[in-house]
Amino acid sequence: MASSICTNKPFLQIQAVGSTYGNYFRVTTFGESHGGGVGCVIDGCPSRVPLSEADMQVELDRRRPGQSRITTPRKETDTCCISSGVADGITTGSPIKVEVPNTDQRGHDYNEMSLAYRPSHADATYDFKYGVRSVQGGGRSSARETIGRVAAGAVAKKILKQFSGTEVLAYVSQAHKVVLPEHLVDHETLTLDQVESNIVRCPNPEYAEKMIAAIDAVRVRGDSVGGVVTCIVRNVPRGLGSPVFDKLEAELAKAAMSLPATKGFEFGSGFAGTFLTGSEHNDEFFTDEHGRIRTRTNRSGGIQGGISNGEIINMRIAFKPTSTIGRKQNTVTRDRKEIELTARGRHDPCVVPRGLSPNDIYLLICHLVFSI
Amino acid sequence: MASSICTNKPFLQIQAVGSTYGNYFRVTTFGESHGGGVGCVIDGCPSRVPLSEADMQVELDRRRPGQSRITTPRKETDTCCISSGVADGITTGSPIKVEVPNTDQRGHDYNEMSLAYRPSHADATYDFKYGVRSVQGGGRSSARETIGRVAAGAVAKKILKQFSGTEVLAYVSQAHKVVLPEHLVDHETLTLDQVESNIVRCPNPEYAEKMIAAIDAVRVRGDSVGGVVTCIVRNVPRGLGSPVFDKLEAELAKAAMSLPATKGFEFGSGFAGTFLTGSEHNDEFFTDEHGRIRTRTNRSGGIQGGISNGEIINMRIAFKPTSTIGRKQNTVTRDRKEIELTARGRHDPCVVPRGLSPNDIYLLICHLVFSI
Amino acid sequence: MASSICTNKPFLQIQAVGSTYGNYFRVTTFGESHGGGVGCVIDGCPSRVPLSEADMQVELDRRRPGQSRITTPRKETDTCCISSGVADGITTGSPIKVEVPNTDQRGHDYNEMSLAYRPSHADATYDFKYGVRSVQGGGRSSARETIGRVAAGAVAKKILKQFSGTEVLAYVSQAHKVVLPEHLVDHETLTLDQVESNIVRCPNPEYAEKMIAAIDAVRVRGDSVGGVVTCIVRNVPRGLGSPVFDKLEAELAKAAMSLPATKGFEFGSGFAGTFLTGSEHNDEFFTDEHGRIRTRTNRSGGIQGGISNGEIINMRIAFKPTSTIGRKQNTVTRDRKEIELTARGRHDPCVVPRGLSPNDIYLLICHLVFSI
Amino acid sequence: MASSICTNKPFLQIQAVGSTYGNYFRVTTFGESHGGGVGCVIDGCPSRVPLSEADMQVELDRRRPGQSRITTPRKETDTCCISSGVADGITTGSPIKVEVPNTDQRGHDYNEMSLAYRPSHADATYDFKYGVRSVQGGGRSSARETIGRVAAGAVAKKILKQFSGTEVLAYVSQAHKVVLPEHLVDHETLTLDQVESNIVRCPNPEYAEKMIAAIDAVRVRGDSVGGVVTCIVRNVPRGLGSPVFDKLEAELAKAAMSLPATKGFEFGSGFAGTFLTGSEHNDEFFTDEHGRIRTRTNRSGGIQGGISNGEIINMRIAFKPTSTIGRKQNTVTRDRKEIELTARGRHDPCVVPRGLSPNDIYLLICHLVFSI
Repeated sequence: MASSICTNKPFLQIQAVGSTYGNYFRVTTFGESHGGGVGCVIDGCPSRVPLSEADMQVELDRRRPGQSRITTPRKETDTCCISSGVADGITTGSPIKVEVPNTDQRGHDYNEMSLAYRPSHADATYDFKYGVRSVQGGGRSSARETIGRVAAGAVAKKILKQFSGTEVLAYVSQAHKVVLPEHLVDHETLTLDQVESNIVRCPNPEYAEKMIAAIDAVRVRGDSVGGVVTCIVRNVPRGLGSPVFDKLEAELAKAAMSLPATKGFEFGSGFAGTFLTGSEHNDEFFTDEHGRIRTRTNRSGGIQGGISNGEIINMRIAFKPTSTIGRKQNTVTRDRKEIELTARGRHDPCVVPRGLSPNDIYLLICHLVFSI
Repeated sequence: MASSICTNKPFLQIQAVGSTYGNYFRVTTFGESHGGGVGCVIDGCPSRVPLSEADMQVELDRRRPGQSRITTPRKETDTCCISSGVADGITTGSPIKVEVPNTDQRGHDYNEMSLAYRPSHADATYDFKYGVRSVQGGGRSSARETIGRVAAGAVAKKILKQFSGTEVLAYVSQAHKVVLPEHLVDHETLTLDQVESNIVRCPNPEYAEKMIAAIDAVRVRGDSVGGVVTCIVRNVPRGLGSPVFDKLEAELAKAAMSLPATKGFEFGSGFAGTFLTGSEHNDEFFTDEHGRIRTRTNRSGGIQGGISNGEIINMRIAFKPTSTIGRKQNTVTRDRKEIELTARGRHDPCVVPRGLSPNDIYLLICHLVFSI
Repeated sequence: MASSICTNKPFLQIQAVGSTYGNYFRVTTFGESHGGGVGCVIDGCPSRVPLSEADMQVELDRRRPGQSRITTPRKETDTCCISSGVADGITTGSPIKVEVPNTDQRGHDYNEMSLAYRPSHADATYDFKYGVRSVQGGGRSSARETIGRVAAGAVAKKILKQFSGTEVLAYVSQAHKVVLPEHLVDHETLTLDQVESNIVRCPNPEYAEKMIAAIDAVRVRGDSVGGVVTCIVRNVPRGLGSPVFDKLEAELAKAAMSLPATKGFEFGSGFAGTFLTGSEHNDEFFTDEHGRIRTRTNRSGGIQGGISNGEIINMRIAFKPTSTIGRKQNTVTRDRKEIELTARGRHDPCVVPRGLSPNDIYLLICHLVFSI
Repeated sequence: MASSICTNKPFLQIQAVGSTYGNYFRVTTFGESHGGGVGCVIDGCPSRVPLSEADMQVELDRRRPGQSRITTPRKETDTCCISSGVADGITTGSPIKVEVPNTDQRGHDYNEMSLAYRPSHADATYDFKYGVRSVQGGGRSSARETIGRVAAGAVAKKILKQFSGTEVLAYVSQAHKVVLPEHLVDHETLTLDQVESNIVRCPNPEYAEKMIAAIDAVRVRGDSVGGVVTCIVRNVPRGLGSPVFDKLEAELAKAAMSLPATKGFEFGSGFAGTFLTGSEHNDEFFTDEHGRIRTRTNRSGGIQGGISNGEIINMRIAFKPTSTIGRKQNTVTRDRKEIELTARGRHDPCVVPRGLSPNDIYLLICHLVFSI
């Protein structure tokens, strides 16, 4: 009798289900960049948490397109509406549904691209997987999908603030070849205001200027650049994460790498730490003035054995240059003909300042906090 | 009425469940380094797959300790036993339970450490989380836990070989400061024999010698080093992964970062790619002589929009230097007294050659293959 | 050291997440009876399935209130809108979001009840669990929540029809004390038209009349009745279900008992079968004229060892009398005062004809079909 | 372009994964009746819970075969061994692995049956699904599989006793045609000793005698009978369950119907309640002398709107007569030949007294308690 690994009988084509995140604080996103709207359903939120659209809107406004010359000129007001799960200004324990309508759709911008696969974009792989062009149907690769996560993250942020004072901050530490030296940012005292003080979201004004100049330089040529986001988590409860498959660093890596355009993740000493010896790398313990066990250094990045130790978690996330560019490229069409393509549409010359939303990390931490 | 986010009523302490991996091909590991044994239960394996202990043993022998002077001198035969789910040499569709008994336990080696937290080890965080010392009870942070994953990975490997010819290879591309230049390895032709040709598992003999020398240099001083593993996947079915939370790179990052001692993950162009512009970075499509859509370059690392495109997937994973070293370090005891500790026990001066098991990646790919 | 089972430290109140169904074909519902609307997000639907609002509307129209004198006079048009996951009339593989706005809200009908807990209703338990009154916030106990399931079931129905010709039918076999004799319905030939031929959805006209009379008799007194729905599944693929926790009958029982107002579930010979001996009960096998292995009788109800055998699956589901009635009852208020309550609002005198939607079963079967 | 519902391309045969139960307190069982042994892995157990094999053994002894003339004469000592997750008599937070070796295997008893499908047994459906005979490989349909659940249930029982004093009791309320009148058992005061006072586990001695006589009558003829188990849960925390898919009654139904040989489930007023009107059925609320909101009657069976209200939960579970009987039956072989079969092997003439283990319900409640 033959093995049943591989058969030829008619079967039902499974589509991976991948739009839900978390088991305890669970978010399901829906919508694509060119349909009716985008949003999410949040299940497992505690009841009686004060919540309104304003809590989400402030976060959505941060990631909104059209904010400056270094982001996509696409204009969306991105006004969110909560239609269930909240009554009289507090959560009820029922699923919270939030939606943001799409208002500035210019489908025709994309029409001529519908034949060709944009290089390094999701076009080809979506078509391989679903047999549809993402421009038309999928569109889930759009940064616009992250609106649902940002809205849900706003709820997580609120819960974490009250529960443990946990705070996530993210800033641009590299744009193209401009690298912000680590010592110029103090993770103990960094504030959101410092991050938000300029359009590139680098807390150091001098380097912010350099980054903006670097982005401008490629923008005018129709090209794009990548960069690095540094993300920190302060006031982390001890004991988050678990020892084996769901190590905290593994969960953080997955959350970070689920953002569009990411190419790498490191925490603590990261790749640079591989050049050290154990005696150089280890974080010695001491007891601080409050009797609390701490580490003198933090090459562990706040995580040991897959579990948070209460120190600041720090991560660096690499974003590739935006793949949609305004320059001529070689590619193929759906029916395998080789052509030249000059993409149109409105896109960020550098996705990093808008890609750095800490809200995915809020979601993760919130999910984990329920299970410590 | 107060919010119900945070209450003081008596409650049941949840322990995160983190010993299960995968939804379609699902593996649950159990056991710790100093108990009765380690192993796993595999659920969801197709029936009628020829399978025996020998299939697993060859993989277990690769990760076995005591293989050479650069690995831990701990002696374990690591002989596995399948006790359910296989009959007459084929799988039956029932859960497959595999176990490897622990034979070389020297609990007393650890006794004096039971008071102090070893720096950068899981000791402190396990105690914070579980209220027990890992030496005694947890021990799940031991590399020995990975035996269950290796055994399960052997099954995944077998399924993938038959289904799609998919093959995962991993080799040491950096040990301490010895960095193997990328152009010295051809990912199209690399073989397992080349990787296994030396004790450090670097496919280039010259660099293998340099790496071994570097490890020996710290080993004799009781110190340790880290390094980087490069892992590739060939003959990847197109369409693995999904567009949002479960992007293929996100799943790969989580799988890789769930291995002990990892600090970073990158794929394709990785962190280096952030220095390029979009026009330099994009992978142009072409149609090859078989009429198949391919990319001319592979900075995408085989993944676009979270979904495999059929090109080789390549990843680099950073491992920190082993935290348990034979040198005096400052630390604290469980009751917060500061002391000096010189760890004993038998540990790898460099975990990288044994940490590079591709079997976690086999598990992931196998899980994903079920859902394309 | 004390056990960590039960502690008094501040903790985060978990809310069970229970609005998602299925792992392969996954549905998340949202919305309550008195908010902005109700609906669902469907994840994991294959791409390129022709789908439109009309496919769902026909099912929604069947469960719509205000259809006859034996259902609630609440008037809702229940018009659904698909806002993502479908383009050019076919599914794209992205999450499908469907929503039905609430149009006939008379919140004030419920105002005076907001102090008292309606007997045998979800009021008290929702308040115990969430600290909010369901009238205000939860409302998830409303039969209106099932709209999301019906819409999703319509998609499942379509997939199953094409894949395996699988068909689910449900009819009222008992209303109050009127019991339809089993031999009057032939499960091999029963049609949807027969079921839909009268307002009580009993396929036998004579008994339908008796049931309607029985419901009318209590309706005019402001009282309510319960009943039994019989549900069958025809053309079931063999091999659905699994041997242990997820036996097919266990999954069917859970799906059926997740409908509001259910009190019991049985399949095949059910409770009556407990009065037989093994030799009376066993279904003997034979080989039919097509060479197919069949059973001569079907006391197994199409399921043996937790797995479908290809015969017709038949189930009976008990529904209690509607708890909201127009008669005076003793109860207590939220602050524990005993009072008399006469509920107002508009409710079904008998929930059974509208409660019998086979769409939950379609959802389950569809989920399972992906995993055979 | 064709729909992708149904394709003919080679694909990987998914096997449903069904050996894991629970998300918060998670149990995975393994092993079959005729392999090396059976057992389970428990993940998510709080740390520092005192636990030993003795806690489980007392429960295993209750379900052990060979206890009396009305159970199978198969002799197994069923001695369990915990090999991980417990150290120094307390749980460590790591997965707990428990195993019971199979000692009394008489594989040859089954040999002649290996060609024919036993009527109403799992033989045929396992072969349809897995392409193997359950006698050989699967064997997961054996009541022996439940050993893993019983062992895990013993842990759940211990946690629940300490946390909330929650207690589950199950007794035989019907064997063949002997029906124990409801008023003869007081659910407020029923004790385990009363249940265990006789071999049929009916707490009323007079009816116990009648039941034993009824079982004996069919046993001597090589036939078998079914019956009903009544199961109650006392001291239930309020707020267990959730409003929609995971209603408490839905979860209980699934847990109960996952036991081998079950045909029906009802709770509270059950099927009989469908003959009442709403005014007869509703449970009026009152405030008791401790100021606690209670119901005067309990036709709701302790559950309203899918959520526990703190009253006693009561359920009735129907078990069919054991399918393996010692009488000649018509059936077919694997290759479709019709034959007569007289089954051998050692089996229970009535599975009900051993099938009534409350441990599955302990598992469920424990899982749910983590999420209130």
